[in-house]
Formats: sequence, C-alpha cells, structure tokens
Amino acid sequence: MAAKPTIPQGTRDFDALMVRRRKHILQTIEQVFVKYGYMPLETPTMEYLQTLTGKYGDEGDQLLFKVLNSGDYFKKLREYQDQAEGHEELDQTYLPSINGKVNALDSKNSLPFIAEKGLRYDLTVPFARYVVMNRNDITFPFKRFQMQPVWRADRPQKGRYREFWQCDADVIGSKSLINEAELLKMYDEAFSYLNIPVIIRINNRKLLAALATKIHAEDKFIALTVALDKLDKTGESGLLTDLEKAGFNQTQSTLVLEFLSISKSENILPILKQFFAEIPEGLTGVQELEEIFTYTQILGRNNPIQIDVTLARGLTYYTGAIVEVVANAGTFKPSIGGGGRYDNLTGIFGLPDVSGVGISFGLDRIYDVMDELKLFPENLKKKETILLFCHFDEATRLHAIKLCAEARKQNIAAEVYPDITKKIAKQLEYADKNQIQFAVIIGSNEMESGKYVRKDLNSGTQIELSAAELYHQL
Amino acid sequence: MAAKPTIPQGTRDFDALMVRRRKHILQTIEQVFVKYGYMPLETPTMEYLQTLTGKYGDEGDQLLFKVLNSGDYFKKLREYQDQAEGHEELDQTYLPSINGKVNALDSKNSLPFIAEKGLRYDLTVPFARYVVMNRNDITFPFKRFQMQPVWRADRPQKGRYREFWQCDADVIGSKSLINEAELLKMYDEAFSYLNIPVIIRINNRKLLAALATKIHAEDKFIALTVALDKLDKTGESGLLTDLEKAGFNQTQSTLVLEFLSISKSENILPILKQFFAEIPEGLTGVQELEEIFTYTQILGRNNPIQIDVTLARGLTYYTGAIVEVVANAGTFKPSIGGGGRYDNLTGIFGLPDVSGVGISFGLDRIYDVMDELKLFPENLKKKETILLFCHFDEATRLHAIKLCAEARKQNIAAEVYPDITKKIAKQLEYADKNQIQFAVIIGSNEMESGKYVRKDLNSGTQIELSAAELYHQL
Repeated sequence: MAAKPTIPQGTRDFDALMVRRRKHILQTIEQVFVKYGYMPLETPTMEYLQTLTGKYGDEGDQLLFKVLNSGDYFKKLREYQDQAEGHEELDQTYLPSINGKVNALDSKNSLPFIAEKGLRYDLTVPFARYVVMNRNDITFPFKRFQMQPVWRADRPQKGRYREFWQCDADVIGSKSLINEAELLKMYDEAFSYLNIPVIIRINNRKLLAALATKIHAEDKFIALTVALDKLDKTGESGLLTDLEKAGFNQTQSTLVLEFLSISKSENILPILKQFFAEIPEGLTGVQELEEIFTYTQILGRNNPIQIDVTLARGLTYYTGAIVEVVANAGTFKPSIGGGGRYDNLTGIFGLPDVSGVGISFGLDRIYDVMDELKLFPENLKKKETILLFCHFDEATRLHAIKLCAEARKQNIAAEVYPDITKKIAKQLEYADKNQIQFAVIIGSNEMESGKYVRKDLNSGTQIELSAAELYHQL
Repeated sequence: MAAKPTIPQGTRDFDALMVRRRKHILQTIEQVFVKYGYMPLETPTMEYLQTLTGKYGDEGDQLLFKVLNSGDYFKKLREYQDQAEGHEELDQTYLPSINGKVNALDSKNSLPFIAEKGLRYDLTVPFARYVVMNRNDITFPFKRFQMQPVWRADRPQKGRYREFWQCDADVIGSKSLINEAELLKMYDEAFSYLNIPVIIRINNRKLLAALATKIHAEDKFIALTVALDKLDKTGESGLLTDLEKAGFNQTQSTLVLEFLSISKSENILPILKQFFAEIPEGLTGVQELEEIFTYTQILGRNNPIQIDVTLARGLTYYTGAIVEVVANAGTFKPSIGGGGRYDNLTGIFGLPDVSGVGISFGLDRIYDVMDELKLFPENLKKKETILLFCHFDEATRLHAIKLCAEARKQNIAAEVYPDITKKIAKQLEYADKNQIQFAVIIGSNEMESGKYVRKDLNSGTQIELSAAELYHQL
C-alpha cells in the first residue's frame, strides 16, 4: 500500500508550533477556571449511544460518530435481516428484544448490535452522566471544568472541524445567580489574558417565553425564537416576512418589533419591566438579569457585557440565562464561546431538580482568531532547544555528548547533532530550521584548549567560553 | 430513559485528583522530552483504516475500533448483500470495485462502505503517516514527542484499558546510536523524577536473528523468539519443551541454552562476540550494544540498564535495539515502557530507507504503579481553592463577593459559597470536602468592623485580619 496517506476530512495534525499555541490557550483558560474554584474532570472518548442519543435533537443524533461493535456484527446483521425479511415493522419493533437492550438510535440506519458506542459529542452530556453516576460521592455545589476534544460528523468548513476541543466550566447543584456572574467574569478575564477583544452577550430564556405569552403565541415559541435569532442576518423586514410566514398576525408582529426596539434603548431593564408588567415569567427574567448585573458590577470587567434579547441558542436545554461570546476584531467575528443555565439536564438520567449553569470556550475558533490577529506570544517556538553541539568525527562527537550532558544537568534544553557529517553547514541548518539560537562547534582545537566558541545564530555574534561558562546567560 | 447510566467497559472517568496526578506524570515526562530536543506533535483521533490496518498484525487488526460511516450505510449494505446473494466469492472480490477504493479490512466482517475510519491504535503509525505526508517540510533528523490516548478493543483486565495514554518520543532520519543512548537516559531521568525504581532492559534483534542463523533455524525465528520471550514464565524446562514442540532438535536446544547462559555472566558482550564469531549479524548486534553502552556511560544513570537477550517484543517492526522498562518495586512489576529501532516504518507509506528509533511511556500503568507505591506528591489536591468566604444573607454575601474578587486579583484561588443558607456548618463542610484550607465567615459584625477572622481548617487556629491582610501568607 504505497498510496500517499491522508487523514479524514475535518481532522488535522498539529505540528509543534500549533501544539504550543493551543497549549497556551488551554493553560490560560485553565488558570482562570482554577482561580474561580473549578475542578478538572475527564470523561472517556466513547460513551454508550444510550447516553448520547436524544440529547442534541434529531440533527445532533445524525452527527454522532458511531463506533462499530467488536465481533462478527456482519453475521449478526445477516441473521437479523433474514428474520426481518418482508417484515417492515420489525425495523421498529424488533430492536428492543434483539439483545434485551433498548436502543434509542434511528432504526432506519442503525441496529443495536452494529454499534452501541459513540464518540463524545460535547462535554455537557458526559458531565451530566458523570454527576448522576457519582451522585453519592459528589459534594454539591459541584464546580467542574473539562477540556477535551469532541467529534461531530458535520460538513467541514472554515472554522468548523469534525474533531475540535471544548473547554467547559459548569456548576451543578446551585441556583445562585452569582454563578452566572462569575462565569461571565471568567469569560472576560480569560479573553483579556489572551488579548482577544470580545463582546459578551446575555439573554434569558424567560424573556423569550414571556414574549411568546404576551403575544399569545406560546405554541409558536420555536418559530418566534428562530426568527429572532436570525435577525442580525435578515434585518427587520426579513424578520417580519419570517413571522408572517410562520402565521403571526399584524398585532403580534408589532409587539415583537416593540420588544426589539426596547433592546436598542440605553437602559433596557426598567423598560422591559414595564413591557412585561402583566407577565410574571418576564418579570422574573428581568429580575434575574438585574441580579446578575449587580454582581458583575462588583466583579468588574474589561469587555462589554450586553443584553441581547434576540440571543436564542440552546433553547432545547437552557432554561434561564443564555450567553454567547463573539470576537470583536478581525474579518469574521465568530462565536468563540457560549453557555447558559439548564434546570434539568440530569433529569434525563434519573436525577431531577438539579440546576446547573455553564460556559464553554471553543479552542479551535479561538486559535483561528488569535492566528488572524497575530496574538500568539512570540516566545512560543516549535522547539525549546537553545543550544546545539556540532562536531566533525567520533572523537569530537564524544566530547560533544559530554558537554551536552552537562548542559542538561543545568536544565538547559540542548542537543548533539546525532549523526557524523563533515558538513557543518548541514548541522547549522538543523539549528536554523529548528529555531535553535546557539551553536557550539567542537573541533580538535576546542577539545585540546578547553575553550569553546558559542555562536548566536540570530545575531551572528560569537564569544569564547570555557566549559563551565558555556551555559551562562542562556 | 431513566436507567442508571454507565460507561463502556475498559474506559474510565478521571476525577479531579486523578486528572492532577496524571498531569503530574505527563508534565514530568514532557519536561524530559523537551530537554532532549523533542518537539510536540498531535494527530487526529480517527485515521483512515487504510492507514491503520496491516500494521499491527492480525491480532491488532481485530482490536481496532472502527467508526461507522455517516449516511445510510444500512441501505448500502442491503444493496450490496442483494447483489452478493449466492455469490460467496463476492465477499472477497467485490470489495475493491464497490466504490473504487481498496480496503485492507478483513472482508469477513467488514465492508468499505460501513467503516473507513478507525480510532488511533498507537502513536507510531500515525507518526509515520505524518512524516510521509509532510516529508518535504520536515527537517531530518526529526525528533518528535506525542502524548495522546489510544484505543484497543482488548479484553479489559487489571492494568489493561480500552482507552489508555501513550507518551512517545521518536527520532526519525538518524541512524546514530546516540539516539538509543539518549532515549535510555530519558527513561532513566523521567522515572527518577517520578521516584519509580525501574530496570531498563535492552536487546538487539540482530542477536536473536544471529542465534537463529547459528542454529540453522532461520525459518523458525518466530517460534524461537516466542519461546525465549516466555522464559521468565516457563523457566528453562518449559523453554526446552516449547522448543521441542516447535521442532527444534537436541543440538539446537543445547545452543539456545548456551546462549542463555551467556546472558547470566558478568560481562556479556565479549562472550557474545565469541559465541557469534562466525555470524556477521551477531557481531553487528554486539557492536551496536557496545556503542550504546559507551554513550550511556558518559550520560550517567540512576537505574540499572541490563542486557536481556530474551527480550523479544515488537519483532514485527523492530530491526535493531529493543527496549523495555519494568517497575522494580510493588507487588506486580509491570512493563511501563518500551521501544526500539525500526528501519522501515515509513516504507509502508511509500517512503523507504528512513530509520527511526523511539520509546513509549505507558501513562496508565505508571499511574497504577505510583498509586500502589504512594509516590504522588502530597500537594496535589482535587481543588486548588485555598480560601472560602462564608456568609448569612444577601448583604453579607455581597460583601463576600467584594472580598473574593480582591483575592482573585491577587491571583489567589478563592470562592464565595454561592447559595444563601444560614447553615454555616454546611458551608464549612463544602470547604472540608473540597480540601479548602482557609475559611472566612462574614457576619454583620465583620462588615461593620472591617476585621475578619480567617480560620485554618486544618489546624483549627484562627487569626483576626483586616481586608488588606486577608490574603497574606496564603
């Protein structure tokens, strides 16, 4: 098999510089998580499909990467098909009994004995699963962070990968809105450390629900929020068209526009309070935002935190605050973080009434933004080696090995060019390509005199040093 | 779905303390890799099955986790089966033409349109694939390290997981035996930092091949090495039985025993030189070991490096040095590292004659050994928070938020108990369970006086401090 190898679409290799840059982002975020009292957790790459399916909507289920069962699934499949032949209904009803397990997969293209595991789709569901499994050992409120890759069989495009990293912080078992405020502050702080200017947007699902109530369109909640969410693309006229198509009447649309006009005013919350004077859920939503802003004011911030009443992400699980962070610089200003409060995430695993709130950082998009804006520290190099020992033959190489061992004892990252070659230029090219700043060439003169020339390959300057001085000021 | 959720067998959740301990190991190893000039690389979790299959022997192919293709593979399968019905031979011959791709999978239980991707089985093959894909951009010799999980559908048992981490360092494009010596030194150094006593064993495939030549059993090389590799379990009588079963005659077995007796002598290499006086490959093997030991003597070491002529791992790819590290303490002394030189790993991807040598650390086994020997640093805690602010009501909580924000500005990991509860005991229990050492209880007296009591929950001592002094000596 000599065909040139490739990697699956939507996945990437990360070379040394990329790894270091990604690590810079991860460490910065982790530092903030830790400072705010979050503890690390790591969950397996594979979860049972029972854990994953039905949690991300139909589209999510389609995007799950499923892992083939071990063993002769092909034979089992044939047996199943033989039995199912001519019995269309078996595709539906036969599944649960085939091996005694209920499987939530779309039966049209999956069977429990083909695949029972899938790759982690996000970090929230595995976290909920972990909490339920370990409910008796966990001290609530439980603040955990998790930084791991996730996989989605999405169509790859700019900024969207099939393997990408999420960095999540969630508190579970606390209804206090201090958590929301601290999580906003953590966004603010992490992006400040990374030098990425951002806008932090916040909404509350209760406002959207109250709007639906106010215009008597509770049954059209999804259509309403989808139209609102698209507003920045469609504009107001597009919104009105969308609403009309979805069956909203003139009066309803007018109220939606009024709601939107509030969001443009200086002081949104008091006006929203009037707007929702008759709708308790709306008033609760406003109060929650007020309380969160009380705390954020004490905590301070560098980046704007804006109320955005059109923000409608994650409505299948968020029940209170909804948060999104967008980069506020560069050519495309992508969403690089998001989160919210969910009152019943562990309910699906049999542990009801545990409220949680969390945020997520998208490592890969953050990387792309920092790359475009040239925000990576310049001292991140692909190799940390600072000193290369060059030589001409067996004897000088042996001498180089001795000196290099001494350098490493001083905790200096150093290398001996491994192979023997008379071509010093080739050895220096190795230093150059690997961004190694200093080189020492060991010849017989140096061995005899015990004096070595250390050359700075950046500046071209060189100094003569004894063996003991060789590692000074590196 | 309210059944209690679980995770796939052979996989694990890592709680905060485990994550920190694993990180301690990873960072220690990485530090050594970096000091010796190795650069990080990360490759995707999924590789094409074409990349993975046929590289790990038949058993390895069986243990690959395969990922289901997206789309309606079930329908495609039915179509295929309809066509293949009654044509047994199609299982073999139909495969390549079905979608124009050659697939190396065992056709008995796989089809190219069911699965074309698999989970990374080790880090060496993806590294070889990366080198071939990027051959024009890489500076050789190329020293890379890689620390990532791998997956094998093995039967889980003590010390064997289906998801586990490898930490590999490889040099490719250098035939110098300095690399072997430095890699041995890196084992020695990393395990010294981790305080794990180890024995580092080294062999050379050329010695085993030469033994086969000397006893005229080149055609029984595998049987010979398998028998030798089992020696520590079977003993010499078991070895003789194994050899007899494999068809070796008396003369051959006697020579094998002579070979083994050499390995027990003080000074192995000169005796091996006599033993292989007529076999050039054997002499080369001895010379290589001599050269490596010349370098390891210069580099120094803390742990024994022993020649073990029965060491026969990885013979399907290793062509020179073979290395294994075993823990030299604790109840079960598992192999916690291994490596060797391979002269032709990239050949399978179309890039011949590139020699490489590498080592691997098994994170999970190292963890298990350190856990048994209680070698983890005591300062590794599940949570780094050092200060908890407790309170009684809205007003004291607001005050706590202010003080906590100030602590974090001083880079101190601190928390406010988020919810309001009169039960101070509950708040202190939160501190206790989370190993938070200090607590400050904010009451109305403290708010008025500006004097706070900081309690050391470990010692029970407490001191009164002003707001400005609150973070001193934490």
